[in-house]
Amino acid sequence: MNFKINSKQLEKLLAKVFPAIPARTTMSVLENFLFEIEDGVLTVSATDLEIALRTSLNVDANENLAMVVPAKLLFDVVKSLGDTMISFTTESNQKMKLTTENGQYAIGYASAEEFPKLPVIQKDKSLTLSGKTLKKAIDKTSFAISKEAMRPAMMGALLECTENGLTFVATDGHRLVKFIDQKVTFPEHENYILPERAVGVLGKLVNDNDLTLYLSETHLSFVMDDVEFSSRLIAQKYPDYTSVIPIENENILKLRRSDLHAAIKRMLLFSTSNYQQVKFSISASLLEVSSEDIDKGSSAKETIACTYTGEPMDIGFNTAYANDILMHLDEGEIQFKLHSPTKACVIEPVEKTEQEELLMLLMPVRLNS
Amino acid sequence: MNFKINSKQLEKLLAKVFPAIPARTTMSVLENFLFEIEDGVLTVSATDLEIALRTSLNVDANENLAMVVPAKLLFDVVKSLGDTMISFTTESNQKMKLTTENGQYAIGYASAEEFPKLPVIQKDKSLTLSGKTLKKAIDKTSFAISKEAMRPAMMGALLECTENGLTFVATDGHRLVKFIDQKVTFPEHENYILPERAVGVLGKLVNDNDLTLYLSETHLSFVMDDVEFSSRLIAQKYPDYTSVIPIENENILKLRRSDLHAAIKRMLLFSTSNYQQVKFSISASLLEVSSEDIDKGSSAKETIACTYTGEPMDIGFNTAYANDILMHLDEGEIQFKLHSPTKACVIEPVEKTEQEELLMLLMPVRLNS
Repeated sequence: MNFKINSKQLEKLLAKVFPAIPARTTMSVLENFLFEIEDGVLTVSATDLEIALRTSLNVDANENLAMVVPAKLLFDVVKSLGDTMISFTTESNQKMKLTTENGQYAIGYASAEEFPKLPVIQKDKSLTLSGKTLKKAIDKTSFAISKEAMRPAMMGALLECTENGLTFVATDGHRLVKFIDQKVTFPEHENYILPERAVGVLGKLVNDNDLTLYLSETHLSFVMDDVEFSSRLIAQKYPDYTSVIPIENENILKLRRSDLHAAIKRMLLFSTSNYQQVKFSISASLLEVSSEDIDKGSSAKETIACTYTGEPMDIGFNTAYANDILMHLDEGEIQFKLHSPTKACVIEPVEKTEQEELLMLLMPVRLNS
Repeated sequence: MNFKINSKQLEKLLAKVFPAIPARTTMSVLENFLFEIEDGVLTVSATDLEIALRTSLNVDANENLAMVVPAKLLFDVVKSLGDTMISFTTESNQKMKLTTENGQYAIGYASAEEFPKLPVIQKDKSLTLSGKTLKKAIDKTSFAISKEAMRPAMMGALLECTENGLTFVATDGHRLVKFIDQKVTFPEHENYILPERAVGVLGKLVNDNDLTLYLSETHLSFVMDDVEFSSRLIAQKYPDYTSVIPIENENILKLRRSDLHAAIKRMLLFSTSNYQQVKFSISASLLEVSSEDIDKGSSAKETIACTYTGEPMDIGFNTAYANDILMHLDEGEIQFKLHSPTKACVIEPVEKTEQEELLMLLMPVRLNS
């Protein structure tokens, strides 16, 4: 067997598949790429049994083969080569040999038999969506995915395919984010929970181009330009998040995101480490935020210009959670929709993007003082 | 007490002193800055008992004071403020209050009594040297300082003040670097060992301007534009390194640093993790470097154009040590001065810099095969 490939072209190919290689695993075969050549097409795959990635490229190969090769070593070697032609050959002693103008590198390979079967994409149900919007949905929601193994359903993002759009939801019980892409509609109403690792890998992989999403009972698959990404689903029922979102929060606080975010970052420095709390004291045209670190005996308060319609209110939030939400909103004017110091607060951009909806929800905390 | 200071000016001031704050300590008073105001001069100091940093600034203060304030909190708060005026006041309840246009921050302070006395710089013996050259000396030598607590003398850099120049030496027994600044001469011959942490902090602090080095039996002090840096010395005898440096290594291998470095970085990928080794097979116009990872069954070899005068030779080096040395040589032609596969090898730039000398030494390893 032999074929030639440019090092930079191969590096791009491997970079697309490498994210599925698990960082730690007890199944050492998963630390390999699956290399398959069939009729002049080289297909490289990787999986951690939860997610799988696959990409292909035409090569001028003289025979078919299937083998597994150590992913990190091969990827590191290819990355470390300059822009050069690599000639691949296999030797009888289970070695794959890479030859360049000045170098020869031998890497042990193994039979492809032990490599797990990758999921075959079921193409009955599909949606087309914009990669740009998917990236935005992931950027806005993924931080709120729960890390608590106690409630496995919440350890992923909910994708709801509905007549009114494609909805992404993430929550850990303390805060919740909902993002709707109204451009993508689906005749039925179906729910899928994508695990956190899949959401993270997908967010890095996706570009601005359109892509196709295939839906099945056990997997979601995203087919991009030249990469196929599949993930198992979390086979759980997602909690009814709609009942948590208040409909009539009539007290509206408007202010510039950057003004509040700068202040909250400073309040983080003054929030006691084991009970991080920031107090919002809201009046018609002035918001005072304050924090106190009782352990260290330090405290801070700042005033920020705002507009507010409603009775003056004192309400407390977890400082880190408030910071997370502000970090994931775009620059511009934002509004807090409030009801009372014990009820969920809705945070949104004031300017809406056409055919999109973004809503963040933050539970208040009981004030210490 | 009150005084005003611009936030960015104070940030710069604190940034100069903060490196002396220990990352971990059992003496909590060392986690503080010492703030002293005397006759309109604010002096900020910090120490970890090994090194000490101090800087000053004129302020318009109405009384004198001395107190300690939590270094990380104050530095983080000042960094997080935009460009603004800060008004400092002290309150009777041991709080320092910072007031800006929109914010008020209270930080607990304590009496300066518990703060250790900082070393007083003895000014009898001094040298003037270029900050640029000092930075270069540190950049070139510090990586070779030993991490082995067994030989405490080698856990610092040797500074030799001599009639022929200021010499910097670092070695861990496997490799050695010697850098001489011939512009700085001293009538006597004196040796000082500066601990590794001091070398590291100094390397980051120093700028291109000239600075004064004060020598004492227990401390070295570097006085820069507006910063005083002092360090305790390692009170040990540095080993006689000169006996290790071979004088007559007559076999000369010349090649481009970048060619060899690129190859060595790839050999690192193929060097067995617990016994990293690269083999140099040297002939008149071609160097072959090769490595083998027996655990993983992988291997690599590359050829590099060179000129060599001497009998063909096979010699082995630790791959990571060879990589370190190549990383710390400037781009250009370099030469390996060799004697035999068991004797120390000298590595130098071919082009010399005027009034400087740079020599690196690498011990070979016994070849496996």
